[in-house]
Amino acid sequence: MTINIALLGFGTVASGIPFLLQENGEKITSEAGTEIQIAKVLVRDDAEKDALLAKGHDFNFVTDISAILNDDTVDIVIELMGRIEPAKTFITQALQAKKHVVTANKDLLAVHGTDLLKGAKDNGVVLYYEAAVAGGIPILRTLANSYTADKITKILGVVNGTSNFMMTKMVDEGWTYDEALAEASRLGYAESDPTNDVDGIDAAYKMVILSQFAFGMTIKFEDVRHEGIRHITPEDVKLAQKLGFVIKLVGEIVERPSGIYAEVVPTFLPKNHQLATVNGVMNAVFVESIGINEAMFYGPGAGQKPTATSVVADVIELAKGINKGDVLPAFNTFARETVYATKEDLVDKYYFAIETEDKAGQLLYLAELFHAENVSFEQVFQENIGDNYASIAIISHKMDLNQFDSLVEKISALDGFTLRNTIKVI
Amino acid sequence: MTINIALLGFGTVASGIPFLLQENGEKITSEAGTEIQIAKVLVRDDAEKDALLAKGHDFNFVTDISAILNDDTVDIVIELMGRIEPAKTFITQALQAKKHVVTANKDLLAVHGTDLLKGAKDNGVVLYYEAAVAGGIPILRTLANSYTADKITKILGVVNGTSNFMMTKMVDEGWTYDEALAEASRLGYAESDPTNDVDGIDAAYKMVILSQFAFGMTIKFEDVRHEGIRHITPEDVKLAQKLGFVIKLVGEIVERPSGIYAEVVPTFLPKNHQLATVNGVMNAVFVESIGINEAMFYGPGAGQKPTATSVVADVIELAKGINKGDVLPAFNTFARETVYATKEDLVDKYYFAIETEDKAGQLLYLAELFHAENVSFEQVFQENIGDNYASIAIISHKMDLNQFDSLVEKISALDGFTLRNTIKVI
Repeated sequence: MTINIALLGFGTVASGIPFLLQENGEKITSEAGTEIQIAKVLVRDDAEKDALLAKGHDFNFVTDISAILNDDTVDIVIELMGRIEPAKTFITQALQAKKHVVTANKDLLAVHGTDLLKGAKDNGVVLYYEAAVAGGIPILRTLANSYTADKITKILGVVNGTSNFMMTKMVDEGWTYDEALAEASRLGYAESDPTNDVDGIDAAYKMVILSQFAFGMTIKFEDVRHEGIRHITPEDVKLAQKLGFVIKLVGEIVERPSGIYAEVVPTFLPKNHQLATVNGVMNAVFVESIGINEAMFYGPGAGQKPTATSVVADVIELAKGINKGDVLPAFNTFARETVYATKEDLVDKYYFAIETEDKAGQLLYLAELFHAENVSFEQVFQENIGDNYASIAIISHKMDLNQFDSLVEKISALDGFTLRNTIKVI
Repeated sequence: MTINIALLGFGTVASGIPFLLQENGEKITSEAGTEIQIAKVLVRDDAEKDALLAKGHDFNFVTDISAILNDDTVDIVIELMGRIEPAKTFITQALQAKKHVVTANKDLLAVHGTDLLKGAKDNGVVLYYEAAVAGGIPILRTLANSYTADKITKILGVVNGTSNFMMTKMVDEGWTYDEALAEASRLGYAESDPTNDVDGIDAAYKMVILSQFAFGMTIKFEDVRHEGIRHITPEDVKLAQKLGFVIKLVGEIVERPSGIYAEVVPTFLPKNHQLATVNGVMNAVFVESIGINEAMFYGPGAGQKPTATSVVADVIELAKGINKGDVLPAFNTFARETVYATKEDLVDKYYFAIETEDKAGQLLYLAELFHAENVSFEQVFQENIGDNYASIAIISHKMDLNQFDSLVEKISALDGFTLRNTIKVI
């Protein structure tokens, strides 16, 4: 028996698949219990087909999806085109044609995942997507298979390589946001429009998917608060260091008694936190739970071979089941009603960067204002920044989101004080 | 349908199992597709039974293993007694009675794993043991299920919490080995005979198990070279820091063209290596491979709840299959012929700590000696240590094991030079 796969798209990641099937052929065949072969590859047009053939890629290239949909010998369709369309239509059609689908398309899964998974179920096939979150880190299968006995209370993720590369440069080298973005662009890490990466959108997509695996709840993408790294200044980075922290763009999902909450925001991480040393384009997912307590899964968030490895691991899992004639299990079976946390239930520490005239009584004034909101200081650092001005950096003790909103409003309204920035502290 | 489990032993880890079954009952039942209940608990004698009942533990305690072996309603036996006997006999008997077995017993698996796994196969049942390596870190299932498409080239593991706690104190606080051991004993991390932990034996057991999952090869325990942390001095720690490293007890398994090699030795880790910040009793396994490239799995290496969580995850995996009427897959299906690497194929950098009279030409003499072995220096640090003596710390470039052995022999034989220590450098 041979399992036939069809690739939709033959870009960087897709071309890593034949590499693995070749290089690890013996192991893959042994693990899957069957040969796996690439039966067809969908490309855009004849020009792309000719170019790939000319480069020595010896596959059965097709330019019409129906050549794959109508081919009964194709067991698994692998979508690696990215973006929403035509990927969404093709995956939907493949599922309707009773083909199992593997994809790495996080944008699509975050926005249309529920529909696609329903399509798979209705057609008696499955949709696997290990590569969609943190490319090479086997995090989704681990959450699905190894956390079955555990109850996860919090996920913290550095899951966007581009913004983490930039923050690493901003922290280690003192670069500005613009300098870091220019270098990320030069190295090909940042796209010409870097919005998805630097504004936390890409990381928010991943939080949507992680929430399903870790908490069994489907947070809507629109409900993941996301804030990017554009407004982080070298002053913030320096103050963070003075106070014992590094700044990273961190996605967080937390379950509180009232429900679940997810956000992607720049975050002060204590220097000795395991996530604080996840640097450059690397990704990591930190998991807090009642059983294991604390664990972290670290690896490459993207790249040809890491992503292809996750895709092929999905294919092997499917092939194993198809070969044995099993009914294939859904990728994730943990599902509960989605309930959102209340603001009162979301408690965090915060960093406040405030500038004010350097005169007696200013810090006392702030202390009284915090005290009136029932919030106390954990650390305060004040320095003169010239022109008779002082910079005051405050790390607060924990407060709920209502207290935070109220404090921000009150400080912003103060005469003679400028609230330059606020950042969550872990 | 209900899956009945029987516990052998009711110590710390075992008593974490009812906690999880209770606390996460709904999720566990949903994931397993069936209720899981503790049918019987084997204890030593009536005195232990009475003591546990008096403490409010409301289980069906039995004092004779045959009450479990002959009970057809028991599906899964969980061995948590530790050590070799009677665990080995009881597991063997349970397998013969056609019961699936879950254990966390690394000592037993490292020494008698092959026999036990054969016993399981012969009887058409399976033996699972996620908790045997790095307690709470789901590393074995991840290697078995998520690295199917990948080829692992190297495993580096900080997998003994006791020695890592001690090394962390020795590195961060400058403590001596004896001071660190005293504190580890006081906190209950070190047993009255700490040999297994501080001499690398426990970590070597884990290398035996990791080699099966990561490389499909069964290295014999006797073939894992292990060397402990007793001979690490505060001078070594200080020199490591000066040269940009921290020292940890690291287990390594490497596959080279000629074969596989495993050892547990104190190791210089670059300060920015992801393993370098794995501190205290925490564990981590760092995996290098041709697909994912670099990944690390970090978490607690021991403890009641982390270990119980791994045990129950195994139970759920088994229950899922039993419930569906599947033939249960072996925990690890990756197996190749075990071939050992040659010494010429094992290349590493090394730290040499040498003391000598502080006079002209001594370093030159050493440089010539290294040069004669075709080994060059990467870093050298020399300082006067009083009494007209000099300490010379050398970080070499890579050399093979034959070159290393030859250098050690020659330096040791030199008049006027003392080779105080050698440590592998990563």
